[in-house]
Formats: sequence, C-alpha cells, structure tokens
Amino acid sequence: MSTLAAQLEQMESHRSVFENAVRDLPLPVCKAFGPAAAPQALRFASQGEVLSTRDSATVAARFPQTVAASGNAVLRVAGPAAARVSGKRVAALFSGGPAAGGHNVLCGLKKMLGADNTLFGVKGGPKGLLQGKLFEITDADAATILNTGGFDFLGTDRTKIKTAEQFEQVKQTCIAHNLDAIVIIGGDDSNTNAALLAEFLYTGIKADGSGVQVIGAPKTIDGDLQVPGLLPISFGFDTATRIYAELAGNILQDTRSSLKYWHFIKLMGRSASHVTLEVALQVKPAVTLISEEIAEKKLSLGAIVEQIASAVVDRFKNKGLKHGVVLVPEGLIEFIPEMNALIAELNDLLAHHADAFAALAADARPAFVAARLSAASAALFASLPDYIVSMLLAERDSHGNLQVSLIPTEQLLSDMVGARLATLAADVPFATQHHFFGYEGRCGAPTLFDAAYTYNLGLTVGALILEGRTGYMASVSGLTSGGEPLAIPLTGLINVERRHGKDEYVIEKALVRLDAPAMQFFTGRRAAWAADDCFASPGPRQLWGPAARQIPMTVALNEGAEALLFKIGE
Amino acid sequence: MSTLAAQLEQMESHRSVFENAVRDLPLPVCKAFGPAAAPQALRFASQGEVLSTRDSATVAARFPQTVAASGNAVLRVAGPAAARVSGKRVAALFSGGPAAGGHNVLCGLKKMLGADNTLFGVKGGPKGLLQGKLFEITDADAATILNTGGFDFLGTDRTKIKTAEQFEQVKQTCIAHNLDAIVIIGGDDSNTNAALLAEFLYTGIKADGSGVQVIGAPKTIDGDLQVPGLLPISFGFDTATRIYAELAGNILQDTRSSLKYWHFIKLMGRSASHVTLEVALQVKPAVTLISEEIAEKKLSLGAIVEQIASAVVDRFKNKGLKHGVVLVPEGLIEFIPEMNALIAELNDLLAHHADAFAALAADARPAFVAARLSAASAALFASLPDYIVSMLLAERDSHGNLQVSLIPTEQLLSDMVGARLATLAADVPFATQHHFFGYEGRCGAPTLFDAAYTYNLGLTVGALILEGRTGYMASVSGLTSGGEPLAIPLTGLINVERRHGKDEYVIEKALVRLDAPAMQFFTGRRAAWAADDCFASPGPRQLWGPAARQIPMTVALNEGAEALLFKIGE
Repeated sequence: MSTLAAQLEQMESHRSVFENAVRDLPLPVCKAFGPAAAPQALRFASQGEVLSTRDSATVAARFPQTVAASGNAVLRVAGPAAARVSGKRVAALFSGGPAAGGHNVLCGLKKMLGADNTLFGVKGGPKGLLQGKLFEITDADAATILNTGGFDFLGTDRTKIKTAEQFEQVKQTCIAHNLDAIVIIGGDDSNTNAALLAEFLYTGIKADGSGVQVIGAPKTIDGDLQVPGLLPISFGFDTATRIYAELAGNILQDTRSSLKYWHFIKLMGRSASHVTLEVALQVKPAVTLISEEIAEKKLSLGAIVEQIASAVVDRFKNKGLKHGVVLVPEGLIEFIPEMNALIAELNDLLAHHADAFAALAADARPAFVAARLSAASAALFASLPDYIVSMLLAERDSHGNLQVSLIPTEQLLSDMVGARLATLAADVPFATQHHFFGYEGRCGAPTLFDAAYTYNLGLTVGALILEGRTGYMASVSGLTSGGEPLAIPLTGLINVERRHGKDEYVIEKALVRLDAPAMQFFTGRRAAWAADDCFASPGPRQLWGPAARQIPMTVALNEGAEALLFKIGE
Repeated sequence: MSTLAAQLEQMESHRSVFENAVRDLPLPVCKAFGPAAAPQALRFASQGEVLSTRDSATVAARFPQTVAASGNAVLRVAGPAAARVSGKRVAALFSGGPAAGGHNVLCGLKKMLGADNTLFGVKGGPKGLLQGKLFEITDADAATILNTGGFDFLGTDRTKIKTAEQFEQVKQTCIAHNLDAIVIIGGDDSNTNAALLAEFLYTGIKADGSGVQVIGAPKTIDGDLQVPGLLPISFGFDTATRIYAELAGNILQDTRSSLKYWHFIKLMGRSASHVTLEVALQVKPAVTLISEEIAEKKLSLGAIVEQIASAVVDRFKNKGLKHGVVLVPEGLIEFIPEMNALIAELNDLLAHHADAFAALAADARPAFVAARLSAASAALFASLPDYIVSMLLAERDSHGNLQVSLIPTEQLLSDMVGARLATLAADVPFATQHHFFGYEGRCGAPTLFDAAYTYNLGLTVGALILEGRTGYMASVSGLTSGGEPLAIPLTGLINVERRHGKDEYVIEKALVRLDAPAMQFFTGRRAAWAADDCFASPGPRQLWGPAARQIPMTVALNEGAEALLFKIGE
C-alpha cells in the first residue's frame, strides 16, 4: 500500500485532517473558573432575582420540593467552592434533535468533575436512561470528542419520560448505578422533563434516603430556548445558522453569477423564525418571510404571494434582475391565520366524516371537502395547487392532526408566485430552484463560539452538581463581556399549556419578537436588500485565524453588544 | 443607530467578516514566476511532447493555422521572458456553470499583465462577448474579488459560439475594443469553443492584418476536464467537493446521532462520477454508486437496488444499525444500460406516435407505451414508481430527448429499496431522507487549494498572452511538488463526436477510470465502510491554521502524491 493510502485509511472513524486538528484547539473559560488548565469548582448564591410565570402558583403546587429549595431564584457565582467534593457519580444524556456542541458539554463536565468523581454517558437518549444503558466516560473519550459536532458519541432520542412506570425505571437506573446526578442536554421539552425528574428524584432514592440531582443544559438549533438577560441563546444555533448562511450565501453568489434563477430556500427551525432571521441578517436576501410578523399582521397566503411577486417584478423592471433568493421559515404555514383556520376545519371535518370520506374515490374527495368548508376556507382551498390539496387530505397523525412540516412550503410559494406572475407581468422571467436546509446543520463541527460556549456550559453544569444543586438549567450570560456562569431554576420558566385536551407543563418557546433590536434592524434594511443585490457571503466557519470569533448577529443585536465578537474569559 | 448596527450595514455587499479577512490572505506562486509580489513573465518552449487523439488528422484539417503553429506540442517553462511586453489589450470571460476560483484567475491575469497592459472583463459570458459588453478591470477590482467565490463579478452564460454570424460578432467586438487577446474560463465545451475562436481569429483581424490570441483556462466543478500528466484537475472541483463532503459528513454524523434514517444524497457532477468518488473518499459512507462502474459491469436497476437493500439488511442484522448514507451521482440513470435502452425506446416511440399519444388521457398513456416497448424495456417500465413513469412520459426537450437530469434518482432508489425490503426483510427498519447537493457548491469561497491554483492559472494565462501564444489551455501541474506552469495545445485534445445527428468537435469528458488509483483505493475500502460506521467529518474548509492545505484525495491518489498536501511555490 502506498504511504498516502495508509494515511487515508488512518483518517477513517473521525480522524479527518480537520478533526485531528480541531481536537487541539484551545478553548477560553470564564474568569470565574480560574485557570483553563484546571478550572475550579464554584459557590453559587441568589442575588434576589426571582423568576415567575403566569402559572407559578400551579407550578409550585406540582413541584413543591424543588420550588421550596430554589425559591425560583437565579443563582450567580459567589466565589470558588470552599472544599473539593469527590465520589459523585453523574450520568449525562442527549435528548431530542442533535446540535453542535453537545460533545463539549460532556468535556466541560468531565473536566469539572475531575478524577475524583465519575461521569457516565447514557446511550440513546432518555430511552437509554430507562433501560440503564450507561458506560463510564474516560479522559481519552473526552479528548476524542472535544470540539467535534453531533451527538454521535452517545446518540439521542425523543422519548418523553411521562408515565409512572417510566419514572420508576429512571429510579431503578439511579439505584443500579448508584447515581448522584443526572444531566439532561436538551431543548424546551427536555428541560421540562428535567424539572419533572428533579422533583421526582428530589429525595428517597438512595440507600441513605437522599435524592438524585438533575441539571439541564440548553440545546436547540431552533434558538427558541431563550431567557432574556439570563440565557442569550441555546447552543447549536450559531453553528446551524452559520452552515445555512454559508449555503444561502453561496446560492446568492450563484444567482448573481448565473443570472437566471429565483431560489426558494426553506430553513429548519420549527415554529420560531429565529434561524431564518439570523440567516437573513448574515446574507441579506431579496425576500425573507418571518412567521411571527405574518401572524401579527394577519397576512393571507395571497398577500404573501403578492409581496414576493412584487419583488420579482420590481427587481426586473428597475434593475433588470432575473434572480433572487427567498427565505422561508419551516413553520410558516401554521402562522398564516387563514391556513391555520383551513387546517383546523379540515382536521375536524375529516374526523367527523371519516367513513364517508374514506369511501370516496381520490378524485372525488376535494369536492366533498370543499362543499363542507366555510366560505373563506373553501376559497383558499380552491386556490391551492393539486399536490398541496392531496397533502391536506392525507392521513392524520395519531392525534388527528395534519403533519404540517411535510408541506413543501418553498414549492407552494414559488408555484403560486409563478401563477400570479403569469397574469400580473407575463414578460418577467421567473425560473426557480428549491432547497430545504435542515439536517445538514444539526451535526456540523461547532463554531468556535458554540465550542467555547458549550465547554463553559459543561463546566457550569459540573459546578452546580458538585455544589449539590438540583432542578436548574445551566447558562452562561455576558457572552460578549467575559462570560458569567449562572443557574436558572427550571420551575421559574414553566407554564401550563393545554395540549391535545390535557394540561401539560411546558417551558414556553421563545418566538421572534417584532420589537426586538434584531428584528428592527432587519425591517429597517430589507427594502434595500429587495431593491438590488447587496448580499454578503459569510463563508465557511473558521476555527483559526481572523474570522473565527463571531457571535450570532441576532444575539449581538438583542444583547446590545458593541461588536460581533464573543469574549469568553477576556 | 447603534455602533453594531452601523457595523452590520457595512458588511453588506460582500463585506462579511470572512470576506474582509480572506482578501488579505497571501497566496503562494510557482517558483517559475519568481517573487510573489512581482511575478515575472515567462518564456515557454516545447520539450517534444506532442498530443494526439483518434481524430487528429480531421482536426488538423479543420484547425490548420493553430495546429501548424503549435504542432500540438505541450509548452513548458524555459525561463523568464527576455523582454517586457506592453500595450496588450486582453478581454476575459466566464463560460458555463460557475466554479470557485474564477475570480482569482482574473486576479492572477491582472497581476501578470501589470500596469502597462489592459485587462477587460466581459459581462455575462460568451453572449456578452457577442454584444461587446466590456469594461476595464482595475487593480481595485482585483483587490475586491481576490479569494472570493462565484462568477458574480462578471456573470456567465452558456451561449456556444457556433454560427458564422456569431464569429463575425466576436470579430467586431475585437475590432471595436482593439483587442489583442481573449481569455475563456470554462469547461470542456467552452475550451472547444476557445479552440474554434483561436483558429477563426488567427489572422487578419486587426488593422495590421494580425490576429487575436485566444487562451483557455480549465474550469468545472465536475472534474471531468483532466489531461493525464498535464492537467491534474479543473478548478472549482476541490471547493465543490469539500462543500458537499462537509454536508455529507454532517449528515453521517446526524445518522449516528439520531439513529433512525437512511439518507440518499444525489451529488451534482453531470455524467462523470468524480465528484461522488471524491466525496466518498472524504466521508466513507455505507454505500456509494459510481456510474462508470455500473456501466462497465452492465448492472441493472434491480441489481443496484438489491445491492443497497443488502447493505441495509446486513447493517441491521449484524450491527443493529438502522441508519446509513447512500451517495448517488447525478448522471447515474444514463449509465444503467437497461435504463438507457428504455429511454431510447421511449424517445423513439413518442416521436413516432406523437399525435396518438397526445390524444390519450394521462392515465391511458403508460399502457399505450408499455404495449409498444421491447419485452425487457416493458418489464423495467412496469417496475418503476408512478412518478417516474410520468416523468419518463413528460415533454421532451427541443432535440426530442428526455431531460434525464430532472429524474429524482435519490428518491427512485430509496422507494425501490423500500419496496424490495418489504418482501426481503420486513422487520428491518427503513426510514429515509433525501438531498440534492448542487448549487450550494458552485459559488462557495474557494479552498486555499483552489485559490492558489487559480491565481497561478491566471499568472500562466497572462504569461502565455504576453508571449503571443494562441490556441492553448493554461495549466499548472506538479501541484504537490512546487507547481509547474504549462500550456496544453487545445487542438491536441479535440475529437470528433456525433451529437444530434451532426459531427461536432469536442474535448472528450474524462470519466472515472476503474483502474485509477483513487477508484482502486475506494473499491478496497468500501466493504468495511458498508459493514459498520467508520465515517469521518471533513469539517468546514479552513483558510487559516493547520487544516488549510489539503488537496483532493482523488487527485493526490491518482498523481501518486505522498501526502494530502498541495505544495505550490515550495
């Protein structure tokens, strides 16, 4: 075998040139932790900031022990820990969709626990916790996964721990492995689950009658887990949006090179439009739809189509441009009030006429449905392309709901814009391409920001565990001014929401606020971006060199930062 | 306005943090050019290497002046130019699909021409040359576009200059702008066009009776413009494959994190599978299809489906894996012999029965066609999903051909694998996702390799023009051993090919050779990659730091390099 072939074989299994190099990249730590080589444990204390929601009383009744212990007060660093704690056995798991930086949470946690405590990884998410799939994470493991993307070291799943039987299984896992603490790295639902577990495991689990601590870490590429002033952003958002922004920037540059296509790009991000807004700020496309604004202004599908069609016409008539980019948030459909009404009517109608509907031939179904819709919904239904009608009449999920995320919104909009242009301005060229950027962004190598942020989150989680805390989500605030580890009481974030006819405890998703500085900046600039090309290409994420230390633009604007640089440990 | 908002506004129009930083990145130049700050003009000479094709005699008759001048001999550097040439007026254009590094060809060319010659850019590709859309490129322009991706500085198009009227228009543009040389930056067809123009413009164009020089530069992300020993790779291939490899690597990491999907990824690259092979070497997926191998082994669609289905079953039964990645080259369909036969029969059939076919209702058409196909084609036709049948019966292009590139091969394969698994092993989980990576890769910021390679290509183009050469394609060989500028006589590459019933001059596309070292390495490793996850994540392209100097793996292997590093100027 040639020398080179041997080298290439050695690059298999996570040993690419990049992966080998990035493992040696040093990460800054917040000053509170002392020296990066040997970060110190911390003492936390309340400074009197108490959180509440509209349902705090109900929540206090459901979570009596954790609320009594925390008083829903935010914990900030009060100094180094008085003494070194040893002998703790801690299990960490990933929950929900993957996000860049999860591995570094484990690395930071391992570093803080040190050699005199034990860290276990839980394989395959919450389900693995139920099944007791634990293994010890070594220093060598941590060195291997440092600064790498994905959740593949442990795997993840979407199991919600809800039933009494499941809670009992968790208890058995705690006993079997003699655990002192569980760390749940996940989004809003997973952190709600962490709160429920913290309450359930609060006492009486171990032989001496003590409980098992539960600490959460804020993960989601969607960016909808935010707490003003306390949690600027969830981890994974920066990496995902930088990946999507590079791709969208490449495509904008392609439109200006090839001079012939309008590209409609749908972006992952669930309900909230944080991802779409961040990508728009990075690349400055001709048209960007923000779901929250569409809902607020009660725009119809027709009005959205008209808005895009006008941009197409104006760019051609005023500047001769036959190209452009339209950014579409994944959750758009549900934020268009009339679509929401139509879907609700359809869900009802199909539930009530299930047998009659099922007996019909496929081509008779649209008329059957149309005759039973309200006038407004019938008109909207009639305006939709055939393939969307088929999807709207397709099988429901187990709750009788339409799977809205499967609707190809980017194709729907471009087809309707095309149809509108045929009557509005048939002389305006309009050739299209479609994209959905999603899975590509969840497991990329973390940006330097996500790598540093998550490592410090891991250190914070570890410090909270060593201090014996439970029922908190770790956070690092002040990301552009040195970084401050803190702990947010989970019960201080929880509301009660009616879902599928039942009251459920939830951490409310943070949506894009129209009065937020990032949204204000966007609305101030978008007319200029629509009128003529003034896009930028954010380029590939750099881990070394002069372009490595960016922070998301939405975060920087909303936090009132003075520059686009994160400054952890400075 | 806040300080930050003002900064963000200043990042519009190609002034992102990355774009601003990358413009200052120094580029190495081949030793032949002397100091990078002031590269010197060169003297070229033949060392007796003469190129020929099976049609060299026909070509010599069609291109008498350029063949007589070059003797189809390769030109290598013989030393610095004896004297400085000034007063040349040179026009450069992009032709065909964009590729990363095109801007740097212009920058290298501008640098070599210096202040005492004039460089014009042609707007909008070959069509712009016909229309005389020229403007002078300044040093400030070159500084702005250096190391940026895309062709957006000039734009591009796909016009082929073929008719006598078009040649006359080019002549008029040359006269109107008093041009001495034209530079065509393009792929195989564009370089064939360059050869035709070189012959046409060889003499009698300018007032003194002299001609206009034409020099080509080898661009295409597809990697199918290669000349063994002389042109290791076209520019843009490295950047595109690194972008696709990062995305495919992210998705592989996602499969191992989420533990539930098979992702079918179609990769741009036209007929040849170079792009797919390179991405496979970078990420090591479970299954990779190489069109050239499928054609060589005469595999049926059913055999390909069986091969993927087996991998799905084996991974689950042996390792419990429910996930994987399948890479599919864009041009696959045309390399499956039975599909090719079916499509040819359909093209014929629809041409001969056009009126009868058009008169039928849509749902009667498949049966009408099936009854008229050969037995083998009818069987294959019957095995295809409905949406593929509709596409196969859809409208033909202006030559009566099916637009094969529109067939969603990734979806076709995954649907057929799913259907096969339902009978073969219904207990094996098989949930799928689909992707097409294409436009995202053409206009990304160039890798350091593509940036350096294209800058040196531009210097070489400039040196050839200053020496008065015409009818050559510039190249840089020895990319892992210092870099050697050279010139390939275009007529030495040209064949005659029958296209749409007419003889045409073409540069034959380089396909993947099954006996090439890169393909051999791949076939030696793929069973291991299929059996269990041993993928790697190549990560985002780095322009600074320890991971910046990679060269494509296929190029390194095929060139017999000892390491994965390019070494221009060392």
